[in-house]
Amino acid sequence: MRSFSFFQKVSRAFHDYPSLSHLIVVSTVSGGSLIAYSDAAYSDSNTPTGRHVVAADEGETKKRKVVVLGSGWAGTSFLRNLNSPSYEVQVISPRNYFAFTPLLPSVTCGTVEARSIVEPIRNIVKKKNVDVSYWEAECVKIDEQNKKVYCQSKQGMDSNGKKEFAVDYDYLIIAIGAQSNTFNIPGVEENCHFLKEVEDAQEIRRTVIDSFEKASLPELSDDERKKILHFVVVGGGPTGVEFAAELHDFVNEDLVNLYPMVKDLARITILEAADHILSMFDKRITDFAEQKFKRDGIDVKLGSMVVKVTDKEISAKTKGNGELSSIPYGMIVWSTGIGTRPVIKDFMKQIGQGSRRVLATDEWLRVEGTDSIYALGDCATINQRRVMEDISAIFSKADKDKSGTLTVKEFQEVIDDICERYPQVELYLKNKPMRDITDLLKEAKGDVAKESIELNIEEFKSALSQVDYEMKHLPATAQVAAQQGVYLARCFNRMEECEKNPEGPLRFRGEGRHRFHPFRYKHLGQFAPLGGEQTAAQLPGDWISIGRSTQWLWYSVYASKQVSWRTRALVISDWTRRFIFGRDSSRI
Amino acid sequence: MRSFSFFQKVSRAFHDYPSLSHLIVVSTVSGGSLIAYSDAAYSDSNTPTGRHVVAADEGETKKRKVVVLGSGWAGTSFLRNLNSPSYEVQVISPRNYFAFTPLLPSVTCGTVEARSIVEPIRNIVKKKNVDVSYWEAECVKIDEQNKKVYCQSKQGMDSNGKKEFAVDYDYLIIAIGAQSNTFNIPGVEENCHFLKEVEDAQEIRRTVIDSFEKASLPELSDDERKKILHFVVVGGGPTGVEFAAELHDFVNEDLVNLYPMVKDLARITILEAADHILSMFDKRITDFAEQKFKRDGIDVKLGSMVVKVTDKEISAKTKGNGELSSIPYGMIVWSTGIGTRPVIKDFMKQIGQGSRRVLATDEWLRVEGTDSIYALGDCATINQRRVMEDISAIFSKADKDKSGTLTVKEFQEVIDDICERYPQVELYLKNKPMRDITDLLKEAKGDVAKESIELNIEEFKSALSQVDYEMKHLPATAQVAAQQGVYLARCFNRMEECEKNPEGPLRFRGEGRHRFHPFRYKHLGQFAPLGGEQTAAQLPGDWISIGRSTQWLWYSVYASKQVSWRTRALVISDWTRRFIFGRDSSRI
Repeated sequence: MRSFSFFQKVSRAFHDYPSLSHLIVVSTVSGGSLIAYSDAAYSDSNTPTGRHVVAADEGETKKRKVVVLGSGWAGTSFLRNLNSPSYEVQVISPRNYFAFTPLLPSVTCGTVEARSIVEPIRNIVKKKNVDVSYWEAECVKIDEQNKKVYCQSKQGMDSNGKKEFAVDYDYLIIAIGAQSNTFNIPGVEENCHFLKEVEDAQEIRRTVIDSFEKASLPELSDDERKKILHFVVVGGGPTGVEFAAELHDFVNEDLVNLYPMVKDLARITILEAADHILSMFDKRITDFAEQKFKRDGIDVKLGSMVVKVTDKEISAKTKGNGELSSIPYGMIVWSTGIGTRPVIKDFMKQIGQGSRRVLATDEWLRVEGTDSIYALGDCATINQRRVMEDISAIFSKADKDKSGTLTVKEFQEVIDDICERYPQVELYLKNKPMRDITDLLKEAKGDVAKESIELNIEEFKSALSQVDYEMKHLPATAQVAAQQGVYLARCFNRMEECEKNPEGPLRFRGEGRHRFHPFRYKHLGQFAPLGGEQTAAQLPGDWISIGRSTQWLWYSVYASKQVSWRTRALVISDWTRRFIFGRDSSRI
Repeated sequence: MRSFSFFQKVSRAFHDYPSLSHLIVVSTVSGGSLIAYSDAAYSDSNTPTGRHVVAADEGETKKRKVVVLGSGWAGTSFLRNLNSPSYEVQVISPRNYFAFTPLLPSVTCGTVEARSIVEPIRNIVKKKNVDVSYWEAECVKIDEQNKKVYCQSKQGMDSNGKKEFAVDYDYLIIAIGAQSNTFNIPGVEENCHFLKEVEDAQEIRRTVIDSFEKASLPELSDDERKKILHFVVVGGGPTGVEFAAELHDFVNEDLVNLYPMVKDLARITILEAADHILSMFDKRITDFAEQKFKRDGIDVKLGSMVVKVTDKEISAKTKGNGELSSIPYGMIVWSTGIGTRPVIKDFMKQIGQGSRRVLATDEWLRVEGTDSIYALGDCATINQRRVMEDISAIFSKADKDKSGTLTVKEFQEVIDDICERYPQVELYLKNKPMRDITDLLKEAKGDVAKESIELNIEEFKSALSQVDYEMKHLPATAQVAAQQGVYLARCFNRMEECEKNPEGPLRFRGEGRHRFHPFRYKHLGQFAPLGGEQTAAQLPGDWISIGRSTQWLWYSVYASKQVSWRTRALVISDWTRRFIFGRDSSRI
């Protein structure tokens, strides 16, 4: 806060003496690093001086309205990083808090408390010098034509029904996440628990305790008790696996002492449709996890596709032989993947994306087919442009002398822009592996001297024919959403500057350059906690780490990633509390 | 635990050498106090030797079944203090935890978390050497004739409905507490929040946040916002007052920073039917509280009797002029007193107490009209026997020589028993004040020499004619319930011993002595937290303490009274967290 108010003072000094306003202050802060603070952009739009200059055009001086839908990873990281005062931001979300969702599986068993992983969104935005307001409501309709969103308050305002209101926007940021995907399997919606929201985790915790209390009641047969204590997890992804591991620990570290009568009857089953659990991880991690679960007595049924759920049984078909089996259960946690929310589906129809499965954006996170709507996080995917779609445009742009052939020199001049615009090219070179771009051209042309390589359009096409296979969709993780939020906030912060001096790659189809660099995801690794203080991690460079030390890495990463000092202190004290006193089993 | 296992070893030694079993071990523990441990009762019923001796009568060797209904203050303190292994205890309660209810008002605003004030009942009882099992169920019927209780599990066992079962008892301990009393005022049940359970406190917390979010929504008039942010507390007792104070702090310390738009619109009103709030406290405390609330802007409406509640307004009649006024509100917390639960009402009809308002027990906490049923805590009151009812029996018991008159000497011989059996006599002497019993007799007889006083029955009646006015009902507090639980557990621990050697006062109506001393409540003082780190306390000896130092006394007393080290650590860390980070306003 101190350094911030220092900047505030400096900034006030600039406002008082406008002639100083293009100067750059370089100050050395403790630690020796340099901080550069430019007041230029600020003064253009917001200082009294700036206002006088553009007073003729009133539309210019008005702050532009940014509406952010959602308070999850994407929305919150956008809000935290937005620092240009030239926007008036309105946040609309049915949840007035940000939840640190990677700890949700820990909440299901009380390893950490729900309250420790949430931070009020008003708290997150209030420290900023940006004008942000928040409405606790759900967006029920996006009207792209009239630049409006229609919202509904969760709460009935009076006996007449729910409160509805509309909000105008200049820019709309859609970050409402996804919903659990039931794949329209009958009975899932009615009988299964999901694990997407904090309330879900709390509900699961209560249900686990309920099951143990229920199974302990007198006058029950052992079969009934077994059925009640049969916990089924559908989906062997990171969330499902972590929940199963947490539940196993909860039962074996805490509940066995309190429910000695039924301790041997509890059973955990994971149903996974694919051939392995944690299939997005390295095989070493998958193998370790499957073996650990086997030792722990967690029944992992691979190649099991759930086809129906009733209030008593879950039916699954075994891949291969197609055998159908029904298992009685006490509780099911459904964690198989994500689906699109209804409001997004409706919006997709409006903008001509009705036939798509997921909302598509360009590489700058702008929704395809719209001008001022951005979408990030789990609710959208980036529709990476294929090189083959643009191959002629790329060729003619690169062929500066319009000779009809491309020399190595000509190609080298645009290769950076190509790699930035089409990251699959870079990935292709890296994976082949090729030393540089010349190798790519050589492959097409055969073994000739570097200087004399010249490609016509057909040869160029064949040189790049394989690159598009390297395209990958980004996973639906907190990490992606958070990085997208940071990226978009930086674009918004530099909007005016970049409109004047575009910093992005060449426009191959059009003229000039793109305003911004496209979004690039930087994978920082992924954890898979497996219970019993064992965690697996796949770190950048395919570095694999498994075991107790990785659990401590997990603790430190998750503590450091907390959004506030309050939640950090609470999460750490929850972990400590668990070590000392175990997990609480009060049914509240 | 160490001293306990020492006793276990000693006790085993006694079992191995039965001839030792009447010896009393006196050991000095650190601190210098003496602990006497008699193994006599133990070995009679439970040792292998004991079993052989009474093998002929199998009923004797079987553990007696004690059923405890409820896991609140009374039930839990009974369970914690019961240490005779000659019982088989079954606890039945719909809540599988004990809640430290005096901190419930703090939970309503997040000063402490709900989870920090609860401890699983299974955790509380598992450390004991007593055989205790717990069922999460509600007692729906007590069958006194057949010594059975009928229970219903809270959860549906299957689609057919709820699980029901019956439990036999030899002794029944009723400690199910009371329910909020709506006095049958229309609309209260539907529109008001109560504050008796942990869930109530959590619900109130969510509603407070909801109100602020709702009032912050766009397109509302100021009047609508004011209505939404009007918090009404009905009942100016300790709970209502503490809730109002907590809410005021929450709004003014935390919420004003997050909801700047509506901060001036929030309003708190206390409606109290009597002439003052906190009327059970000393007038100095009442005055201080009323003045503090006035300064804080909390509107205290005295002499206001609520007559009707609708979903929009609460209507109250002013005492005196009988004027009726209706106030729009956003949320009402109803905290006016306690009422009898339906299962108790039904039980009262069975045992001939149908015309009473509250279940009555004798001074030994045994339900009147029953043999083996005890009731304690808020669900019952002690029906203290009047001296005037027994006056002839007392006289004839005291008149040892059957002379028809009572001398001072004769009276002095039984006065201890009288004071124990009829505590109002002791209170009368203390309040008059009288040095000793002779003064009482003198008052009746006039100023004669002490030795020559002799009273006939009529004079004796007149001497004691005023004492019954000193009888007081015990308040419905945690303190009373806890002391009753401890008392009853001690009686149960010494049941066999005291059946042989009764330790209670003379039976004036019958022969011999009562088995046990009657229950005596020892008032340890009461706190009234008033917000802003100010607390009032009325301590024994009518010592009044008000202010910030009393708040710290409150902190230390409430921390020390916690039922486990876990909750103690959590409560203290919650307070610390509140000091550093404030209260959380996430709506979960």
